[in-house]
Amino acid sequence: MYLIVLCIRGLTHMDAMQSLFRPESIAVIGASRDPKGIGYQCLKNMIDSGYKGKMYPVNPKADEICGIKVYHNVTEIPEKVDLGLIVVPAKFAIQAVEDCGKKGIKSLAVISSGFSEIGNDDLEKQLVDTAAKYGTRILGPNIVGVLNNPLKCNASFAPYLPYHGTAALISQSGALLIGIDARSWIDKIGISHMVSIGNMADVDFADLVEFFSSDKDTQAVSLYIEGFKNGRRFLEVAKKSSKPIIALKSGVSKRGAAAAASHTGSLAGSSKVYDAAFRQSKVISAHDLDDLFERTMALSLQPPMHGKNVLVITNGGGVGVMSTDSAEKYGIPLEDAPEDLKAMMRKHMPEFGSPKNPVDITGQGDRHHYYNAVKDALSHNWVDALVVLYCETSLTNPDEIAQGICDAVKEANVRKIPIAISFVGGERCINAGAWLVKNGLPYYKTPDGAMNGMGALREYAIYSEEAANEFKPWKVDKKAALDIIAAVRKEGRNALTEPEAKLVFAAYGLPIPKGKLARNVEEALKVASEVAYPVVMKIVSPEIIHKSDAGGVKVNLKTPEDVRAAYDLITANARKYNAKANIHGVYVQNMAPWGTETIIGSTNDAQFGPTVMFGLGGVFVEVMKDVSFRIAPIGQKEAQTMASEIKGYKILEGTRGEKRKDINAVTEAVSKLSQLVHDLQNEVAEVDANPVIVYEDGKGLSVVDARIILK
Amino acid sequence: MYLIVLCIRGLTHMDAMQSLFRPESIAVIGASRDPKGIGYQCLKNMIDSGYKGKMYPVNPKADEICGIKVYHNVTEIPEKVDLGLIVVPAKFAIQAVEDCGKKGIKSLAVISSGFSEIGNDDLEKQLVDTAAKYGTRILGPNIVGVLNNPLKCNASFAPYLPYHGTAALISQSGALLIGIDARSWIDKIGISHMVSIGNMADVDFADLVEFFSSDKDTQAVSLYIEGFKNGRRFLEVAKKSSKPIIALKSGVSKRGAAAAASHTGSLAGSSKVYDAAFRQSKVISAHDLDDLFERTMALSLQPPMHGKNVLVITNGGGVGVMSTDSAEKYGIPLEDAPEDLKAMMRKHMPEFGSPKNPVDITGQGDRHHYYNAVKDALSHNWVDALVVLYCETSLTNPDEIAQGICDAVKEANVRKIPIAISFVGGERCINAGAWLVKNGLPYYKTPDGAMNGMGALREYAIYSEEAANEFKPWKVDKKAALDIIAAVRKEGRNALTEPEAKLVFAAYGLPIPKGKLARNVEEALKVASEVAYPVVMKIVSPEIIHKSDAGGVKVNLKTPEDVRAAYDLITANARKYNAKANIHGVYVQNMAPWGTETIIGSTNDAQFGPTVMFGLGGVFVEVMKDVSFRIAPIGQKEAQTMASEIKGYKILEGTRGEKRKDINAVTEAVSKLSQLVHDLQNEVAEVDANPVIVYEDGKGLSVVDARIILK
Repeated sequence: MYLIVLCIRGLTHMDAMQSLFRPESIAVIGASRDPKGIGYQCLKNMIDSGYKGKMYPVNPKADEICGIKVYHNVTEIPEKVDLGLIVVPAKFAIQAVEDCGKKGIKSLAVISSGFSEIGNDDLEKQLVDTAAKYGTRILGPNIVGVLNNPLKCNASFAPYLPYHGTAALISQSGALLIGIDARSWIDKIGISHMVSIGNMADVDFADLVEFFSSDKDTQAVSLYIEGFKNGRRFLEVAKKSSKPIIALKSGVSKRGAAAAASHTGSLAGSSKVYDAAFRQSKVISAHDLDDLFERTMALSLQPPMHGKNVLVITNGGGVGVMSTDSAEKYGIPLEDAPEDLKAMMRKHMPEFGSPKNPVDITGQGDRHHYYNAVKDALSHNWVDALVVLYCETSLTNPDEIAQGICDAVKEANVRKIPIAISFVGGERCINAGAWLVKNGLPYYKTPDGAMNGMGALREYAIYSEEAANEFKPWKVDKKAALDIIAAVRKEGRNALTEPEAKLVFAAYGLPIPKGKLARNVEEALKVASEVAYPVVMKIVSPEIIHKSDAGGVKVNLKTPEDVRAAYDLITANARKYNAKANIHGVYVQNMAPWGTETIIGSTNDAQFGPTVMFGLGGVFVEVMKDVSFRIAPIGQKEAQTMASEIKGYKILEGTRGEKRKDINAVTEAVSKLSQLVHDLQNEVAEVDANPVIVYEDGKGLSVVDARIILK
Repeated sequence: MYLIVLCIRGLTHMDAMQSLFRPESIAVIGASRDPKGIGYQCLKNMIDSGYKGKMYPVNPKADEICGIKVYHNVTEIPEKVDLGLIVVPAKFAIQAVEDCGKKGIKSLAVISSGFSEIGNDDLEKQLVDTAAKYGTRILGPNIVGVLNNPLKCNASFAPYLPYHGTAALISQSGALLIGIDARSWIDKIGISHMVSIGNMADVDFADLVEFFSSDKDTQAVSLYIEGFKNGRRFLEVAKKSSKPIIALKSGVSKRGAAAAASHTGSLAGSSKVYDAAFRQSKVISAHDLDDLFERTMALSLQPPMHGKNVLVITNGGGVGVMSTDSAEKYGIPLEDAPEDLKAMMRKHMPEFGSPKNPVDITGQGDRHHYYNAVKDALSHNWVDALVVLYCETSLTNPDEIAQGICDAVKEANVRKIPIAISFVGGERCINAGAWLVKNGLPYYKTPDGAMNGMGALREYAIYSEEAANEFKPWKVDKKAALDIIAAVRKEGRNALTEPEAKLVFAAYGLPIPKGKLARNVEEALKVASEVAYPVVMKIVSPEIIHKSDAGGVKVNLKTPEDVRAAYDLITANARKYNAKANIHGVYVQNMAPWGTETIIGSTNDAQFGPTVMFGLGGVFVEVMKDVSFRIAPIGQKEAQTMASEIKGYKILEGTRGEKRKDINAVTEAVSKLSQLVHDLQNEVAEVDANPVIVYEDGKGLSVVDARIILK
C-alpha cells in the first residue's frame, strides 16, 4: 500500500514537472490590459519569445488582451491546460488556486508575492493546502516565472529569454535571475531553462534537480542558493543526478548568513559543512557569480576530466606561466609531457618555442599550428585533458585560431577528453569565443578562467568516484544503545553520564578502555584489579559536567592505596562542589597509554541533519580550527578522504621521525560514529569522543572520554 | 663629489624618462617599406594613433615611407631627436645604438629581439655598454614598444592604443601586453601609458615606477611581473611612490616558477616572500588577470579607504548577501549602520526594504531612490566608503541609475570617500558601466568585483600607514659581531659554532641564556656554578652540526656529579661519532625554563636579499608551515603585524586559560635579528634562532639554540 502511494506520488511529481517545463498550453490567471502590469508583461513575453503552445489569458473584466481571447475564469477554458501562471494579488491567490485545481491543472507557477517573504506564513500554507487537495504542485510563490528556451517560452516578467544552451539555472533570488538572464548574453552562458524558485512553499531545489537530471535539453544544473527547506533530500537527489550540479551558496560569511536569513527566512549553515555536503553529493561549489558562470560553462559543455594529465598549449609565455599558477590553485597537477608527445609538439613551433608543458608554440602560432598541435595532442593517450590558450597578437586572427582548434577537435573525434579555451584580447577574441561556445567549446577571457573550468571538470570526476562508494552499515547493537538512552530519559535527564555514553559507543563498536562504575571503595578496588593498573578514576554525576573543575578526576593511580585515597578524595570534592549533586559513584577505568590526541564529534546541522567531525586534538582544534566535516553516515573510504583534508594529517602519517599512526582505526571509528548519529538522530543532539587516543599503525585507538547530549 | 654624481645621474634618469614618455620627436631606426615588417608597423601605428610630434624614419635604402621623408642614418637628422625606436635585426642593433648615442638621443626603446631571451647575453651587454658610453638609457630589448595615451602615440607593433585612463601598465610579457591592450577596451580599463619592459637590460621596474610616481597623467601603476633583476631597489622605489602600485606576480606556484624561469630567465621567489615584500612597500598584490584589472580600476580612480565603515546600497537581496560574503573574503568589516543613518535610508525604500547594511532599497529602487540614498550616505560621517550594487530589473533603467548615482556623488563633492559600483545584468548595464567609468566611478560586473576593488583601496590605506613606520636601528655592537665572523673565516670555516653564533646574537641584543665554553671537566664545573644549576651541556665542534644525533647534548643537569659524568660522556660520544672532529670543548649553559617555543630565522631571498621569518615551533612550523616573512630590516611595529599574521598567534595572546606571552619581547627580537641579517648581509647566508623560548608577558624570552652560516 505504502509503495503504491509512493509510486503514484512519483508519477504525479513527474507529471507535474512535465506540465511545468513542457506545457502545451498555459493559462495566465490575472492577465492584465495594463502594459505596466506584470499580468500583461507575462502574457506579452510569452508571445514575444515565440511560444507555440496555446495561451489562455484569464481576467474576469476583459475580453481580449494582446489579440487573444480572454476567459473570465480558468474553469471556463474548454481545452486542457498544462500550466497555470498565477499573477493575481496575494489575497485572490487562494481562489485562483482552487479554480485551477478544479480545472485539473497539474502545475502552477505562482508569481504573486505577499506571502511568507513578508511574514504571511498562514496565507502561504493555505495556498499549498488548497493545491494539495487537487494534487496540484506549486512553484513559488514570489517568483519571476519560468523561462524555457527549448519551447521558446518566456513565462515570466523578465524581459527576454536567456542565451540558448544546455544549463538549467535555478535561482532563489528573483532579482538576480533577471540580472543573470541579461548577463548570459554577454558571456554566452548557454541556458536551457531558467527557474525562479521563490519561497519554495512546495516545489524545491530537490524536485527541480530530479527533473532536470532526466531532461534531454539539459546537461548541467546551476543553482543560486540562499538556504534549503530540506537539505538532506536535496543531497540525496543530487547524489543520484546523472548531470553535474553547480551550486553558489551565498550567505556563508557570518554576516552573509544573517543577511540571507533576513532575506529569505532560510537558516544558513557554516561554509565548511556546505562544502562537505556538496562534495558528498558530487555538487560542485562556486564561490561567486563569475565562478558560477565559469564552472557552469565547462560542466554544461564538456565531459568530466578523468585521469590527471592536462596538456596546456599556448602562444605566449606569460599566459602559460599564469595558467601554471592557476592549475596549482585549482588542484590540477601539471606534469611534463612524455618525450614522444614533446617531439610531436616540437613540429608545430619555431626554434625558440617550448615543447614542455605548457607547450609554447610562440606568438607566431597561427591557425595551422594550433590545428596541428591540438590534433596531435588529442591523438596521444597520455593526454586526459586539454587547455588551449591564445593571446591576441598583431599578426594572427582569433577567428582563424578558433576555427583551427575547432576543426582539430571535430576531426580527432575524441569524446572523453575535456577541453577548455582562453583567448586574452579584445572584441575579436570575444567574438571568436562566442563562436567556440556555439561549437560546444568552453571559452574564457583569462587563463585562470579556463583552468577554473577544467578544475570543475576534474572535481566532478573525483566527487563522482567518491560518491560511488556506498555506505555499508556496520554490525552494531542499536537496541542496546536505545535501551541506555531510554533509561536516561526515564530519569528525566538529557545528558548521558560518561559511563552511559561509553556504553552507547561500545554498542556501536567504538573501542573504549576497560572500566566500570564503582559505587563504593571496595567496588573501586575490585574494578581496578579487573581492568588492570594503572587506572583513572572520575566522578559520575548527572549534575557534574565539568569533572576536572570539580576535582573529580584522578589519573595514573598505580596501587590499591592510590585507588582508596582517590575514591575518598573525589567523592568529597564532588560533594563540596555541588552538595545537591546526585552522585552515581566513581568510574574506574584502565588508563589508556598516551598517543596522538584526536577528536571525533557530531552536531545536528540545521539544513542537513547529523554531521560527523574529525580533527587532531589540542591546539589543532582549539587554535587552528583544523577540522573536517561530513554529513552522516559515511563509509570508511569517505572517512579516509575526510581525515586527509585536515592540515595536520601529516601527524597521523608520521612526521618528525615518528611512526605512522593507525589511520585505519581512525577511519573505522569515524564511520561507526557517523552511523551512530545517523541511526539515533531522533534521540541524539550532540556527540563527542574527546580525546580519542590513536596509537601506532595496527595498534588501534581508545575513546578516552565520551559525551552524548539528547534532543 | 659623490653627491654631485648622484644628482647628475638623477637628472639624467629623469631626462631619459622624459624623452621616453614625453618625446617631441621620435626616430624609427629600421623603418621599413614592407607593410608586414615591424619597422613599417611601428611608424604606421604612430601616425594612425594621432601622434603630433615629429617622426623620422631611418633606413639606408629608402627615401620615403608612409609619405614621410626617410633619413639614411640617424646622425643625418638635422633636428633634435628625443626618442629612438630601434627595430633593426639584433646584429645591427649595436651600430644603431652607437649612431643614436652620437646623435645625442637620451632614450632608446629597443624592440628588436634576439638577445638574452635566446641566450645572447654578450650581445645584450654590448648593447647596454654602447648606450652607457653616451649616457643613453635603453628600454628592452625584446619589447612590443611604448603606448602613450596622453600624447596619442602608439610607438609599438601592438595594433592600437589602449582605452584611455589613468593607470600606467607595465608588462614583462609582450604577448600579454597586446592582449591586455585589446582587452582594456572591453572592460574599460583606463590606461595612460602601456610599457613593454622586455629583457630589462637597463631600464627596469624601479625606473618606471619612479617616473610614473611623478607623472601627472597617471594615478596608479599596474605591473605584470615574472621576476626582478634588482628586487630590493624596486621595493625601495615602490615604498616611496606617491601612487598606488598593483602587481600581478606570476610564476608563484612551484611549476609556475620553473615556467617563468625558462620564459624570462628570471629567478622567482616564494609566493609568501613576495606577498610580504609587496605589503612592506605598499604594493597591492593581484593574483590573476581579472584581479589585476579589478584592483587597477579602483586604485586608478578612487582615493584610499581610510577608516573601516563601508555602507552597501543595493536593490536586490541576492547581490546584497553575496557582497557580504565578499566583504569577509577581502577583509572588509561590514557593520550595522548607526540608527540615524538607518533612519535616513528608510526614506528611500518601500515598506519591505531593509535599512540594515546592506541597505536594500528593493527592486523598485529607481534613479531617484539611488540618488537620494547615495547622497544621504555620503553626507553621513559614519560612512568611510560606499559600495553601490544594482541588479537589472524589468522596470528600471541602468542608464538612469548610473546617472542618479553619479549626480549624487558630484553634488556631495566628498573627495575622500571611495566608491565602487556593480551592475549585474546585460548590455544596458555594460554601457551604463562604461559611462560610470568615464565619470571616474569604478564599475564591476559582479558584487564580488566591487568588493575586491574596495578591498584593494582599504589594503592600500593600511599598507601606507604601516610603511610610514620607519625602521630605527637598535644600538648594537656590530664590530663585535664582525670580529667573531672574521675569526671564524680565519679558521677557514663557514659555519659558526653555537657559542660563536650566540655571541653574535648577544652583540645584537638578543637574550641568550648564561653560558660559556668549557675545555675540560674542571672548567665545566666552574661554568656550571657561575651560570647556576640546572645546566645544559652541548658538544662544540665545527664538524658536528647535529649535536643530538651525535649524543652530544645533555639537559637538566642538577649537580656537579651530573656535570662531570655528562662532560665525559659527551666528549666520548662525539669522538665515537666522528673521530676526526675538532672538538672545541663543551658548552655549558644555564637551562632556560620551558615556555612557548618559537623560531626566528632568516634566509637570503634571490630577489630581495635578507629576509626575516617568524613562527611558533614544533608542529606549527614543521606540519602546518605556519610562518610569516618580511624583508629585513623591520621595526618593532612591523614585527608586530608580521607576528600577528601566523595562525597560531592566539597561542601568544594566551589561549586555553593560559596567560599572555611576552609578545613585546618577541617583536623586539624579530626586529633586532632583522637588523643583524641586514647589517651583516655581506657575511651571513642563513641565521636561525630555534627554539626561542618565550615567557609570560613581561618575563622576556631566551634564544636557546642558535645557528649562523656564512656566505
